[in-house]
Amino acid sequence: MLLEKIEKANDIKQIDKKDYSALAQEIRQFLIEKISVTGGHLGSNLGAVELTMALHLALNLPEDKIIWDVGHQSYTHKLLSGRKEGFDGLRQFHGMSGFPKRKESDFDAFDTGHSSTSISAGLGLVKARDIKGEKNTVVAVIGDGSLTGGMAYEAMNNAAKLETNYIIILNDNNMSISENVGGISKYLNNIRTTSGYLGLKEGVYNALSGTKGGDNLVNRIRKVKSSFKQMVIPGMYFEDMGITYLGPVNGHDIEGLLTVIKEAKRVNGPVLVHVLTEKGKGYGPAERHPARFHGAEPFQIETGIPSKPRTTANYTDIFSTVMCKLGQRDEKIVAITAAMPDGTGLKRFHNMYPDRFFDVGIAEEHAVTFAAGLAAGGLKPVVAIYSSFLQRAYDQIIHDVCIQNLPVVFAIDRAGIVGSDGETHQGIFDFSYLSGIPNMHVCAPKNKWELSDMMKFAVNFGKPIAIRYPRGTAYAGLQDHRAPIELGKAEWIYRENEIALFAVGSMVKTAETVRELLKERGYNASLINARFVKPIDEAAVLEACDNHKLIVSLEENVRSGGFGEKVLACMNDNHKSNDYLNISIPDAYVEHGNVELLKKEIGLDAESIAEAIICQLAK
Amino acid sequence: MLLEKIEKANDIKQIDKKDYSALAQEIRQFLIEKISVTGGHLGSNLGAVELTMALHLALNLPEDKIIWDVGHQSYTHKLLSGRKEGFDGLRQFHGMSGFPKRKESDFDAFDTGHSSTSISAGLGLVKARDIKGEKNTVVAVIGDGSLTGGMAYEAMNNAAKLETNYIIILNDNNMSISENVGGISKYLNNIRTTSGYLGLKEGVYNALSGTKGGDNLVNRIRKVKSSFKQMVIPGMYFEDMGITYLGPVNGHDIEGLLTVIKEAKRVNGPVLVHVLTEKGKGYGPAERHPARFHGAEPFQIETGIPSKPRTTANYTDIFSTVMCKLGQRDEKIVAITAAMPDGTGLKRFHNMYPDRFFDVGIAEEHAVTFAAGLAAGGLKPVVAIYSSFLQRAYDQIIHDVCIQNLPVVFAIDRAGIVGSDGETHQGIFDFSYLSGIPNMHVCAPKNKWELSDMMKFAVNFGKPIAIRYPRGTAYAGLQDHRAPIELGKAEWIYRENEIALFAVGSMVKTAETVRELLKERGYNASLINARFVKPIDEAAVLEACDNHKLIVSLEENVRSGGFGEKVLACMNDNHKSNDYLNISIPDAYVEHGNVELLKKEIGLDAESIAEAIICQLAK
Repeated sequence: MLLEKIEKANDIKQIDKKDYSALAQEIRQFLIEKISVTGGHLGSNLGAVELTMALHLALNLPEDKIIWDVGHQSYTHKLLSGRKEGFDGLRQFHGMSGFPKRKESDFDAFDTGHSSTSISAGLGLVKARDIKGEKNTVVAVIGDGSLTGGMAYEAMNNAAKLETNYIIILNDNNMSISENVGGISKYLNNIRTTSGYLGLKEGVYNALSGTKGGDNLVNRIRKVKSSFKQMVIPGMYFEDMGITYLGPVNGHDIEGLLTVIKEAKRVNGPVLVHVLTEKGKGYGPAERHPARFHGAEPFQIETGIPSKPRTTANYTDIFSTVMCKLGQRDEKIVAITAAMPDGTGLKRFHNMYPDRFFDVGIAEEHAVTFAAGLAAGGLKPVVAIYSSFLQRAYDQIIHDVCIQNLPVVFAIDRAGIVGSDGETHQGIFDFSYLSGIPNMHVCAPKNKWELSDMMKFAVNFGKPIAIRYPRGTAYAGLQDHRAPIELGKAEWIYRENEIALFAVGSMVKTAETVRELLKERGYNASLINARFVKPIDEAAVLEACDNHKLIVSLEENVRSGGFGEKVLACMNDNHKSNDYLNISIPDAYVEHGNVELLKKEIGLDAESIAEAIICQLAK
Repeated sequence: MLLEKIEKANDIKQIDKKDYSALAQEIRQFLIEKISVTGGHLGSNLGAVELTMALHLALNLPEDKIIWDVGHQSYTHKLLSGRKEGFDGLRQFHGMSGFPKRKESDFDAFDTGHSSTSISAGLGLVKARDIKGEKNTVVAVIGDGSLTGGMAYEAMNNAAKLETNYIIILNDNNMSISENVGGISKYLNNIRTTSGYLGLKEGVYNALSGTKGGDNLVNRIRKVKSSFKQMVIPGMYFEDMGITYLGPVNGHDIEGLLTVIKEAKRVNGPVLVHVLTEKGKGYGPAERHPARFHGAEPFQIETGIPSKPRTTANYTDIFSTVMCKLGQRDEKIVAITAAMPDGTGLKRFHNMYPDRFFDVGIAEEHAVTFAAGLAAGGLKPVVAIYSSFLQRAYDQIIHDVCIQNLPVVFAIDRAGIVGSDGETHQGIFDFSYLSGIPNMHVCAPKNKWELSDMMKFAVNFGKPIAIRYPRGTAYAGLQDHRAPIELGKAEWIYRENEIALFAVGSMVKTAETVRELLKERGYNASLINARFVKPIDEAAVLEACDNHKLIVSLEENVRSGGFGEKVLACMNDNHKSNDYLNISIPDAYVEHGNVELLKKEIGLDAESIAEAIICQLAK
């Protein structure tokens, strides 16, 4: 086993050249076996095996720096930098992260998780190097999907301006998470399909030079463009900005990759290396179903079938279904996703109403302002973006949607603790960043039926509104509690007279258990499903204050700016002096791992909450 | 006077062709005269006179739609759409906005203010048109400066994909607010300087066609690129994405503009019209000092000199000075601006330490992650971005700076009510959106000396920290109160025993007056300068609770998620039941106008606050 020789970083340099392919094969086998057990990002990692090997061979790590855009393709990098043992605990609580983490290893130069940040971060490392007078190599590895994010373009613009040595590797598999979209994709595809390209330069030059008037033309062209070369080689898109373009090169040919990376290190100024890879390379099921194996649940290696087939509907399924129904009833309803047609559940809407569906690529800012434009044009756009990614469009929500009070519906999936993706992906800020925005309305469903009801309410509401719901199985309890959705109206589920549990969204289910635990300890608790975080139901708060000793708010969101602070403010405004307890996410990033374990860790499980309440009552 | 004939939209169509230049001249005169009195954006408007005239002549408004990127160049549009009378109250309280506003006129198709949103918004209107089966023309007008914002690129990528009729006008004056930067600028400059370009296509084609092997080469090239044309005309950058490029055309030649706009309307699919304009065109002082006349204070027309020369230092000046001093003492300090070297005061730092200064263009997202990279590389970056523009980088602050706990200093100018720019520019959310972020620290100075002290504290703090300060004159009172800055420590300024005024930043000065007003009415008030919003000084809050009946928090920020909610939460956590009053910005957008008037309107002036306090005490 060649892999046995890889115990720490740079051990790969001891491997014989002739064994590179065999090592790549072993790495693939290793990744497939490990991920089939733990789950994780498979396709992107299988695509980047040779590229990562070539980088570890060509660079001097950790003095040289690699920044992995998004970072979920960094598994081979973790393996080659001495973290083989970590794979058994991959993405698990206190285990190895599925993303680069500086606190995990010196070989992780910069934390990533969201898309399109690598070129900016790497440029920072590059200029820090220059200012300190150091000489190391900095490499940003970015997928073609991430290039649809405007931030990558902002960074390239500045890399071109700063004119210092910097290697950007474009890992081009012609995919975002799903199929890639738009103009840049079309452009890259042109390059990919024109393998005869490179020979052309000389041909045109020679043909012109010998001919009557040709020499003159060549000279005129030289003046017009900075060089004739730029006109006929691929990559002029980048060269026009001032970034040297190398490639395209086969991303599964290690020797070829080594040659081009060495060439890139010799280039003065920023250079873009265009590497063509295949997502899922070497594993049939992943090659055939790239979207499914982007972020995979544990699966059977032989078939690729999930080990534990899902039997219950999750919130995404519910959203998917209700969108199809709503789309049928109202032709004004349009749907927007930022590269997540599968993840958001909009694929079915796409299939049914292709003209009213828009996948804008990884481009959350554009997604939101585009939706605002659609709304200004008289339609009813539903923007489906995960909670942590919607952070990208905070200003667009304020500036383009809410100032004009436009009827855009935000369907915010993956809100709350998301689990194994960890810190970068926890959707724990949305109540806070959305509630501060004038004209915005914010709600969260307690169960699967309420998500449907809220969506129906939202598309006809006529003003900006956000509905946030968590990752995973949709709660199917409390089905008898289905009072019509009214703006800013909470729903009383159990009426008692000692403790009032004001729970929002996913915490309604938790609060039911809390209530049982309290009952066992001899306490009575009312349960109110808040439904709306903005506006909150002041009448319900005041009613609760009238005959409950202790008011408790429960939310899966950070405390600052969240639901609880609004409950307390409402109590204060109305001179209510009941005891009040705020149950929310503490002021710290929440790592990766099993959601239940994480909730226990931060005191958001039913037992911890019940304890906190009893403790509060004792004060 | 030709302008007298322009009373409502489309009146310009009655003007004789031969009078176009004279009308343009009159419009310039009108704008210079009006803006010299009210202040406003002069340079960009003088540059867009003919372009706007041509659009009003060529389009059928308001059925056709124009979206003005940023929007401060829309004055001629306002004039030609019947708002001549509005210019006397331009940017004043209850007067005409300096930006397009749908609520102001049917001819304003979409509100703008921040940069790089127009192509996204316009694309939304385009698709709404298509889905509704309508046929109007939609035009986005975007400056080359706004093209450095990645969102514009996300939108072009999608415009290319959607392949429907859409006109994007690139108003290229080779300037952001200050000089333009980066790769795209270089690219556009290449086009600008190659006027002989257009004739080349035929020349190359003919030369090749006649020659031995040339025909074959032409055919090969045709296969390689989608057409030979793209190789030798300018704008292939856009054409490669799938957007037809027309231009460049002289932006001060109305006939030429009319021709190219008509041509653009005939193109199937998205088209980019490249228009070359001169910022400040027709007014000497503005042509010579484009940055100064970007957003101008009232000035003397003959000389361009401000009517009321500034005699007192503003916070920007203080920041400018302290940055130069800090830069001298510590070579690790680097400064980053997003196209605002003048506005942020970093121009002097740039002059003194050019290698440690970075103007990244209008690209706030990149600016923040680039700073994170610089910090990860061992430097001490100071990012100076206005409060409302930093909203653009909310996710980057969470994801790239704070998760890794990197020592980036955010110098946030224009925080609080900014005045005449209005809704889009008010910096009233920063306490809220920053306070919810783990690892972030947030403070605000009471006066000019404290800004210096906080900056000195911040650059050596070693963790993420934000300092926010308002637009305008730096407060020079309370100079004897200069206790050293300590993390999370407030400063007691006056100790009394009835009312405790906890004021943050700009509100300390206001609170001094409030205190005087209360004293006149027979009430004693302590004054505490909070300094830190995160972490708040819990000890100071508790100390105040011990011997004050009423605790009042005062901040120039929205209530939700702001300083006050933290004070109340702290009181509740510690079982303090003192009366509490939250003075902050209500949950509504604040329009444009004089800052003092606006503060009165929203109850943030000393008199209103004193009244509110007395009213609270009476309850």
